[in-house]
Amino acid sequence: MTTPQPVNLEQKFGLFAEAWSPKVVGELNGQQVKLAKFRDEFIWHAHEHEDELFLVVRGTMRMSFRDREVLVREGEFLIVPRGVEHCPAAEGEETWVLLLEPASTVNTGTAGGERTVTDLERL
Amino acid sequence: MTTPQPVNLEQKFGLFAEAWSPKVVGELNGQQVKLAKFRDEFIWHAHEHEDELFLVVRGTMRMSFRDREVLVREGEFLIVPRGVEHCPAAEGEETWVLLLEPASTVNTGTAGGERTVTDLERL
Repeated sequence: MTTPQPVNLEQKFGLFAEAWSPKVVGELNGQQVKLAKFRDEFIWHAHEHEDELFLVVRGTMRMSFRDREVLVREGEFLIVPRGVEHCPAAEGEETWVLLLEPASTVNTGTAGGERTVTDLERL
Repeated sequence: MTTPQPVNLEQKFGLFAEAWSPKVVGELNGQQVKLAKFRDEFIWHAHEHEDELFLVVRGTMRMSFRDREVLVREGEFLIVPRGVEHCPAAEGEETWVLLLEPASTVNTGTAGGERTVTDLERL
């Protein structure tokens, strides 16, 4: 076998600039580890079958739910259960987020639309 | 529903001292997010059916494989595929690690023995 190699988050985040376009940096047990940069606000959506973990690597994420907003700071993670409507945003200029979710997960969930990204790049 | 709440890694790591005793801090898609402190060396083992992700939150982890060793530093993660023998260790005094693996995963894998921890505490 090939010896597993460490993945450096800062190095990988340095390889892309665009916001709201997750990059795949790892796979395990049918889940994917993705990195994304957040700027401004995304769109309201939910995932029918997938729970989603957001770990903030840099900056602060603002996650809106229908009943309230939650701020998630560097070194904190948030798990959004399947079926729960949410709208992610950067609180401040830019936020770096590690996502963990099933490989089947689409960024816009059941909302779809022009901000949907398929065929994610692997870094 | 209850609004999801952020989990602060440093705060959770502050709640326990013992090494090699993973604590569950989150669940999603049949996987668990666990936190563990590493001191010295663990034991050689493999997991038959589970891939395992190690994200280093503080310090440096030394992961031994049968053919070589890999150092994983703060801000880096390593995925150990199922079936691959490995022996985790702290490089230095203490290493803080976030683990992601299926809820079924036992810390000693198929090796078993006295360092096996079951009924993991939830923080």
